[in-house]
Amino acid sequence: MDQIDEQAARPSVPEMDALLGKPFPVLDHGFVRLVDYMGDDSSIVQAARVSYGKGTKTAREDEALIKYLMRHRHTTPFEMCEFKVHVKLPIFVARQWVRHRTASINEYSARYSILDSEFYLPQPEQLQPQSKQNRQGRAGAYTPVQAVDLLDILKGEGARSYQAYEALLAGGTDGSAPGLARELARIGLGVNFYTQWYWKTNLHNLLNFLSLRADPHAQWEIRVYAQVMLDMLKAWVPITHAAFLEYRLEGANLSRSALNAVRAVIASGDPGSAQEYLQGRELAELITLLKLDQLSSGT
Amino acid sequence: MDQIDEQAARPSVPEMDALLGKPFPVLDHGFVRLVDYMGDDSSIVQAARVSYGKGTKTAREDEALIKYLMRHRHTTPFEMCEFKVHVKLPIFVARQWVRHRTASINEYSARYSILDSEFYLPQPEQLQPQSKQNRQGRAGAYTPVQAVDLLDILKGEGARSYQAYEALLAGGTDGSAPGLARELARIGLGVNFYTQWYWKTNLHNLLNFLSLRADPHAQWEIRVYAQVMLDMLKAWVPITHAAFLEYRLEGANLSRSALNAVRAVIASGDPGSAQEYLQGRELAELITLLKLDQLSSGT
Amino acid sequence: MDQIDEQAARPSVPEMDALLGKPFPVLDHGFVRLVDYMGDDSSIVQAARVSYGKGTKTAREDEALIKYLMRHRHTTPFEMCEFKVHVKLPIFVARQWVRHRTASINEYSARYSILDSEFYLPQPEQLQPQSKQNRQGRAGAYTPVQAVDLLDILKGEGARSYQAYEALLAGGTDGSAPGLARELARIGLGVNFYTQWYWKTNLHNLLNFLSLRADPHAQWEIRVYAQVMLDMLKAWVPITHAAFLEYRLEGANLSRSALNAVRAVIASGDPGSAQEYLQGRELAELITLLKLDQLSSGT
Amino acid sequence: MDQIDEQAARPSVPEMDALLGKPFPVLDHGFVRLVDYMGDDSSIVQAARVSYGKGTKTAREDEALIKYLMRHRHTTPFEMCEFKVHVKLPIFVARQWVRHRTASINEYSARYSILDSEFYLPQPEQLQPQSKQNRQGRAGAYTPVQAVDLLDILKGEGARSYQAYEALLAGGTDGSAPGLARELARIGLGVNFYTQWYWKTNLHNLLNFLSLRADPHAQWEIRVYAQVMLDMLKAWVPITHAAFLEYRLEGANLSRSALNAVRAVIASGDPGSAQEYLQGRELAELITLLKLDQLSSGT
Repeated sequence: MDQIDEQAARPSVPEMDALLGKPFPVLDHGFVRLVDYMGDDSSIVQAARVSYGKGTKTAREDEALIKYLMRHRHTTPFEMCEFKVHVKLPIFVARQWVRHRTASINEYSARYSILDSEFYLPQPEQLQPQSKQNRQGRAGAYTPVQAVDLLDILKGEGARSYQAYEALLAGGTDGSAPGLARELARIGLGVNFYTQWYWKTNLHNLLNFLSLRADPHAQWEIRVYAQVMLDMLKAWVPITHAAFLEYRLEGANLSRSALNAVRAVIASGDPGSAQEYLQGRELAELITLLKLDQLSSGT
Repeated sequence: MDQIDEQAARPSVPEMDALLGKPFPVLDHGFVRLVDYMGDDSSIVQAARVSYGKGTKTAREDEALIKYLMRHRHTTPFEMCEFKVHVKLPIFVARQWVRHRTASINEYSARYSILDSEFYLPQPEQLQPQSKQNRQGRAGAYTPVQAVDLLDILKGEGARSYQAYEALLAGGTDGSAPGLARELARIGLGVNFYTQWYWKTNLHNLLNFLSLRADPHAQWEIRVYAQVMLDMLKAWVPITHAAFLEYRLEGANLSRSALNAVRAVIASGDPGSAQEYLQGRELAELITLLKLDQLSSGT
Repeated sequence: MDQIDEQAARPSVPEMDALLGKPFPVLDHGFVRLVDYMGDDSSIVQAARVSYGKGTKTAREDEALIKYLMRHRHTTPFEMCEFKVHVKLPIFVARQWVRHRTASINEYSARYSILDSEFYLPQPEQLQPQSKQNRQGRAGAYTPVQAVDLLDILKGEGARSYQAYEALLAGGTDGSAPGLARELARIGLGVNFYTQWYWKTNLHNLLNFLSLRADPHAQWEIRVYAQVMLDMLKAWVPITHAAFLEYRLEGANLSRSALNAVRAVIASGDPGSAQEYLQGRELAELITLLKLDQLSSGT
Repeated sequence: MDQIDEQAARPSVPEMDALLGKPFPVLDHGFVRLVDYMGDDSSIVQAARVSYGKGTKTAREDEALIKYLMRHRHTTPFEMCEFKVHVKLPIFVARQWVRHRTASINEYSARYSILDSEFYLPQPEQLQPQSKQNRQGRAGAYTPVQAVDLLDILKGEGARSYQAYEALLAGGTDGSAPGLARELARIGLGVNFYTQWYWKTNLHNLLNFLSLRADPHAQWEIRVYAQVMLDMLKAWVPITHAAFLEYRLEGANLSRSALNAVRAVIASGDPGSAQEYLQGRELAELITLLKLDQLSSGT
């Protein structure tokens, strides 16, 4: 059962090598910069095939196998690839990011070093009123005049808090006292100030991150980071990237009731028969998902 | 090999039950509040003993077994107990806390809800200048006048940032625009604003947390939280608590060279002979640890 | 934003307390025995609600909230409950079980203690030929005579390997040598010999375990353990159990292409139009899932 | 604070590249084969330094920094390197190995494929009687004649169990029935049969694995695997390897009482004064560790 592949070098991906070290700008001062990676699409196949040992004589296509693994949520072979980036990001984004626990992080320490005067200010078009429908979202738009007013408040607050930081580091209003410990001086800085870190995770967990953070429910400011990494994913493991879109990002979970509703609609030819199984928001979502509202009911 | 213990109820600890639900104040607005726990000292013993099966006929003392496990870093039986608290804490403390990844967290969402006007202001005696020796520490003291000046800066900054937050939520300086989305309005608030969460971890990981965060190298503001939980630990699993102090908190790691230095000192009777094996900071730390400087060299 | 609930005692579930300590038989010598638990359905709600803080004035129904969390894969509140069982199981089942990494385990040690003469022998009806379709499954049936012959082989092999074990422990064929170390004597015992362990995991990971191991693709011998724990789940957290069946166990993932196929079938009224989007096994599975083959094509 | 290093390629280690793909034999049929790696000593330094940002103007030596990190158990920078091997190993070794949970594994499936007739037989010199002192160890030696007798028992048992396996796969004693499902036919095979897997972990967890499995308390059969990987570690990250030996493998933990005992011995010049603080096994271990028994008491 021993399958000892000849191996002259580590797997590498020229498209990925071309990205190494380059900071891809995100938001007004942030970036994502690829630092290292391990493995490629073939590494996933290699790990999956150890399970089959002598059993598989014929060479199944790599692509078919990766699609199979993605479809059936056989996630462990995707753990065999690793991804490491250097990221500069606002603290409030970092706080959402760090909830993905299966990753390694080394972050800039504001106890140890002094923070730069860099804080995130949204572009005017990103400023939006509180959504009425979605308690944790934004919707609608401001007039240019309104946007300028709101941005001025944010901008003034960022500048003032950095001045306070500098005054504390300098020993107070007249600078006569010894400088306050950095670990305390920084506590008044806003969560829009930038931090940075090295972040490393395996491909399986990267996909989980992307499926949650490239999603419209995620705050826009973290989605733009996810988008850059989704592009890196495509350069790195193109087959996995395609399967990820097909089976996860652009697929959907249907509940038992939703499946029953679909069966009823198909059997009856009547979109309205979905209501036997689903109500309220779940019904609305199924209608949107399957474009049932574009059919004439009862035909 | 089946050891089926009679069991009428879940293990419980009256001293711990007495703490349930009570907020223990920490810092100026924070608290730690015990929400639930699972297991006790006997649960550790129970899990450790499954390894021995029929082998152990005689009843070894629970205490000796727990000490043995702690001493030999047999950590898995400590995972059999669980600890859940509700904590209110400044964001910069939460950012240090969350780096302990093997824990479950549900946190207050400032995307979803509005934050209160509560931010951490150190007590005057906690304000200290930046340490010269320790780049991430504080040392020395301020005069009362200096402390008041520094606190005023922090206090003013906290108040102003909350005013800005309120203005953004209210739709700008004159309140004529729709309120800004909460997920954006909060980005100028300082990392000393309070958040809160439910935090649950197992006893093994709690001990790891405490060994790092009750340590003098940790920032004082997280150490006070660790101290409250160390007291809860004592109420909950007193045998484990004692063993933890004996073998971890108050013990020390010696390197190969440090062990050689100790052997040389003992063999020669001369504290100075440690220098054959250690230099610089490592030598200084061994001298402090073993109080070698309190001996007359060369006797 | 502080929501300090009055709390007199830990949450408990009488239906679960009634199960404590009782071994539920599985296979010929195995069992699952509930040792402890932490939390209940309300603990999930409690943790989820901390996110909403003051925001939620009206009391949403617990059930609706748990269904919402399950449907949207908001998994962290489910981590707030904990489950601990004592399990006796064949080694080959333990080998599948242990791949669920986010759990705590203390296992009987055959280095330390002597194993009993207990090995798993399938019931005759569980003996099935190798499946042609599914390389890792079984299908079809044996005649009673055939089954007896196969069982005799397994039974003979188990008995002989235990005799060899005993001979090694006794110091060889004539017992004249010192007994072989237990850690070596056991290496010839089959993977159907029983081991046992304490196993503890949180509710989120328990659901993951059950969704994989209560599934028809899992080997039957581990499915029967999952089934017992699924029954315990129902006693413990009935609302979560119902939502788990609705949204996970009895739901399905549809890929982008499968969604397109469903839309085409609904729009055209023709089951055959699914073929525009899906082929082969994926098409066959959609047909089965939606019972498309029970409709007359082209109507 | 941005430190954007120029980067032309992934870090690589020629000494490690030279090992890629080559199976290093372990036990009678096993091997360890390096498949891939990510990072090197400089990656650890790079990640640690992000914490210091602009703060560090002077270039501290990499070696000093790595030693510092190892000494103070700053473990996260070591997570920035990754290690992947293909391993062939007996099932009972795999069962110990898999308890290290923070790793990725893809294993050969005996449900899917047929196992080879390869089982571990110890070399005669590895056969040892059960230790009297250590319930989970071996001690002493056998005569050549005794060893041959014991080995014959193990060998016979392995051969017979494989014959039974073949008979079950072939459809019983006369081969007239359909072959038994592979997932059942294999259950009589001993835990000394070989399996294989791809195993990937980060450097921090590799060090934890090695500190436990290269230790004399580990079963000899897993120690020999750890030894091969320890050699790979030296080729890969030589500075980390040296620091690991200095501070972990060849260092020791001293409890509060042991530190007190050492202080007393040094202050009094009398090895016997250790007894004031330690008794029994803990005293004996300190005496051995510090070679106190090689000193004349009371001088």
